[in-house]
Amino acid sequence: MSEGKFREIFERGPENIAYAQYFAGQSYLNILSGEGVVIANVTFEPGCRNNWHIHKADKGGGQILLCTAGRGWFQEWGKPARKLGPGDVVAIPAGMKHWHGAAGDSWFSHLAVEVPGENGSNEWLDPVSDEEYAALG
Amino acid sequence: MSEGKFREIFERGPENIAYAQYFAGQSYLNILSGEGVVIANVTFEPGCRNNWHIHKADKGGGQILLCTAGRGWFQEWGKPARKLGPGDVVAIPAGMKHWHGAAGDSWFSHLAVEVPGENGSNEWLDPVSDEEYAALG
Repeated sequence: MSEGKFREIFERGPENIAYAQYFAGQSYLNILSGEGVVIANVTFEPGCRNNWHIHKADKGGGQILLCTAGRGWFQEWGKPARKLGPGDVVAIPAGMKHWHGAAGDSWFSHLAVEVPGENGSNEWLDPVSDEEYAALG
Repeated sequence: MSEGKFREIFERGPENIAYAQYFAGQSYLNILSGEGVVIANVTFEPGCRNNWHIHKADKGGGQILLCTAGRGWFQEWGKPARKLGPGDVVAIPAGMKHWHGAAGDSWFSHLAVEVPGENGSNEWLDPVSDEEYAALG
């Protein structure tokens, strides 16, 4: 699909090989800050999204998404999906089951800021099925 | 000055009253995340810049700038100023004397991510003089 009006702000970086097993479709990962606070630019091709997952930590933890380009989705388990676009901010506390990714007809980029925590880890769960995703609308 | 091709990504927020005494010119401050990791969107009108300052902390601390719109400057004390534009990232460790702001002929926005630290504080120093600033080119 053409990138059309997708105005990327941060460098896209390489294919996201490290987390590819937890994503449907192609994403790209560019680590902008690896120390102090870990910040990555994540870019999703149209239709690409990550599996349901949970950021775990004994204290603190979680992730903040800062949307910079294109259109996408965020969904917390049990709630309606939320449309995302440039300028949107999503605070994801530790323990919240969720997924995020591009819209079906648009590229999407967000910065992901890792909130420091104690004994942090990620729990990766089921993919968002094609049926669930297609129904987002 | 017209905002011309300045493509703001994050909401500008109100006038930056809290830090106005440490800035030359008008800036705007929008706190995007106030807990976990503090993240603000800072927007500078053309010519606006902050004073020389130092982010202090006993451990950790400092700030990461993520540039999203327009054109600006960053300068570390004793070094040439660095031109900034969308997609640029500046890691400012605790203890580094520096300033940042817009170019003379452009609006400028960056996200400022506070790196958590122990006993953090800001030391505000002299303004960047009009002569220094005009000489940047």
